[in-house]
Amino acid sequence: MKILLTATSHLDPSPLSADGHEVVVFDETAPVPPEHRDAEAMILWGMGGARAFATLREMAGYMTSLRWIQTLAAGPDAILAAGLPDSVAITTGRHFHDATVAEHTLALALACARSLPRALAAQHEHRWAHELGGAKPLHDPDRLTTLIGARALIWGFGAIGQATARLLSAVGAHVRGVARSAGTRAGYKVIAVDDIDAALPTTDLLVMILPATPSTAGALDARRLALLPRRAIVVNTGRGSTVDASALNAALHEGRIAAAGLDVTDPEPLPADSPLWDAPNLILTPHGAGGRPVGAMERIVRNAGIVAASPAGEPIEGLA
Amino acid sequence: MKILLTATSHLDPSPLSADGHEVVVFDETAPVPPEHRDAEAMILWGMGGARAFATLREMAGYMTSLRWIQTLAAGPDAILAAGLPDSVAITTGRHFHDATVAEHTLALALACARSLPRALAAQHEHRWAHELGGAKPLHDPDRLTTLIGARALIWGFGAIGQATARLLSAVGAHVRGVARSAGTRAGYKVIAVDDIDAALPTTDLLVMILPATPSTAGALDARRLALLPRRAIVVNTGRGSTVDASALNAALHEGRIAAAGLDVTDPEPLPADSPLWDAPNLILTPHGAGGRPVGAMERIVRNAGIVAASPAGEPIEGLA
Ligand SMILES: NC(=O)c1ccc[n+]([C@@H]2O[C@H](COP(=O)([O-])OP(=O)(O)OC[C@H]3O[C@@H](n4cnc5c(N)ncnc54)[C@H](OP(=O)(O)O)[C@@H]3O)[C@@H](O)[C@H]2O)c1
Ligand SMILES: NC(=O)c1ccc[n+]([C@@H]2O[C@H](COP(=O)([O-])OP(=O)(O)OC[C@H]3O[C@@H](n4cnc5c(N)ncnc54)[C@H](OP(=O)(O)O)[C@@H]3O)[C@@H](O)[C@H]2O)c1
Repeated sequence: MKILLTATSHLDPSPLSADGHEVVVFDETAPVPPEHRDAEAMILWGMGGARAFATLREMAGYMTSLRWIQTLAAGPDAILAAGLPDSVAITTGRHFHDATVAEHTLALALACARSLPRALAAQHEHRWAHELGGAKPLHDPDRLTTLIGARALIWGFGAIGQATARLLSAVGAHVRGVARSAGTRAGYKVIAVDDIDAALPTTDLLVMILPATPSTAGALDARRLALLPRRAIVVNTGRGSTVDASALNAALHEGRIAAAGLDVTDPEPLPADSPLWDAPNLILTPHGAGGRPVGAMERIVRNAGIVAASPAGEPIEGLA
Repeated sequence: MKILLTATSHLDPSPLSADGHEVVVFDETAPVPPEHRDAEAMILWGMGGARAFATLREMAGYMTSLRWIQTLAAGPDAILAAGLPDSVAITTGRHFHDATVAEHTLALALACARSLPRALAAQHEHRWAHELGGAKPLHDPDRLTTLIGARALIWGFGAIGQATARLLSAVGAHVRGVARSAGTRAGYKVIAVDDIDAALPTTDLLVMILPATPSTAGALDARRLALLPRRAIVVNTGRGSTVDASALNAALHEGRIAAAGLDVTDPEPLPADSPLWDAPNLILTPHGAGGRPVGAMERIVRNAGIVAASPAGEPIEGLA
């Protein structure tokens, strides 16, 4: 089977070649070269913005042998939106980003709790920040200074949310999740989103790992931010659209929450004149949490084997 | 039993009072008020520097009923150095700081791996740091960008080192320890310090959690720094004296290691004219990893019960 593999995957294609597939590394943001339009499978991010989107839509016209697209992104939104025929099976990168995004979420939460932005600012002035060292209470009522015993709430308790829960538990936080329906998942108590308001006043660390959908747009708004205690830290590694940026900015400026860490904004890149850049106690990273699939090649090889063996289509892992 | 409790402990004394002890909160850096020199026990940090040291030495003269000192610090060095009579049992704060120091160590390691200092610098310029986001390889040969699969070496594999090992394992690092003798501890492979040179070239993250002793002074020197790969991150949350600061500074300036995080320096506070403040890819925190004992009151109450019940002395937990 001829498989096109996006160059930015940084994946070693040799396990696919070893299985007898012909792998062609290509640029997913440009039209597919004519000699490779007979490929039956493609592995791509589908996250290159408007240009990639147009390319995908065009592709549907000329990639007449295409039977399978494996996306590397956690969500297949961009690929689904391209309107490919139903004969093309689309599998998502679900779980490929659990470990990396959970790690980044922990990094932002710890950096906020351990006041690393303030430490770096003092360092810049050659100043030993006595206020950040020495003997202190374990739990400061004014700001969360440790995740040990912290009450964490993870809004969006899917693949990445649950991976994050495990890391936060390891450092000693008490974790609850929020999803569309209540229950117990992976051993954690999950609250239904309709009941979230009651949970916010007892939340020290609010982690947002929601997809961008109409129902999650502006989910964390001014009213809900106001329900958090002053010591709270907010981290968003899901999608920028799920947080009302100006409400967050105001809450940080007015000291109504202690700190925030954002890996995602709306739009991206964040425009240079956004007030968010200068919000106090904010750490902004440029959508760098994921972007490096973990365990992807193993699953791709399994799926490629199934697709190649059964032209009629058979269950493959991660169907969108 | 009358117990003097240092004000900076931030501990709630009520469990001791509930057990019938008389607790007097006092300032450990000043002479004990005459009316409290009859106390039989003291709970103190013993880490207030030269002044506290002089106070401790003096105290040995006038605290004639003293039978027990509980220190909150992990190491009892300062108290032992005060030369109190053998009739005074000294118990250390071993394990009180495992969770907090391990958490801070993880915070510094993740902040280095996730390039938070560079992200904050770009944020300051209102610049979306494309170089830190988007698709990238999981393992960058030039700098460690994730702890997932990272080869970590923890030099000083005692109470705090082992707690740190558990956290690093939780995020997916492969952990080995270094102590005075080789073996297996808490399930981790431990290398003898005499064999450390062979391990450094395959170390991505070197964590230093050593006490300050003559044999650990300058343990991480220029020669050993040169054995680390260019992608390595160094974190020190033990004692500043264990790292040759000017060798570390040079390694960072010359890009011979990727980044470093230090919670401890020698001396402390770090003088304003130290070149370390401006070392590239360095995060400096002002000895803030610990300073808030976890689980201390429970052990203190147990020990106080034993001391009060048996004037002759009986095994108490954490004897120095
Ligand atoms: N920063 C990065 O680099 C990066 C990288 C990868 C992914 N991401 C983002 O992370 C998101 C989550 O990924 P995932 O793999 O964890 O997705 P997932 O497994 O599909 O989980 C999504 C979770 O969000 C919940 N949810 C969806 N709509 C909701 C609503 N209206 N109210 C409350 N909860 C809602 C779902 O609830 P139910 O369980 O009840 O359905 C589920 O728990 C992705 O969509 C992507 O936007 C970011
Ligand atoms: N940054 C902070 O806020 C903070 C807070 C608390 C403590 N600390 C520091 O952390 C240090 C460690 O605390 P801990 O409770 O983990 O102490 P610990 O349980 O006594 O462990 C010390 C470890 O260091 C090893 N070691 C000692 N001398 C050595 C040498 N010459 N070569 C190689 N290894 C050597 C010991 O080896 P063996 O096991 O072979 O004896 C042991 O594994 C303390 O001494 C203190 O300096 C820092």
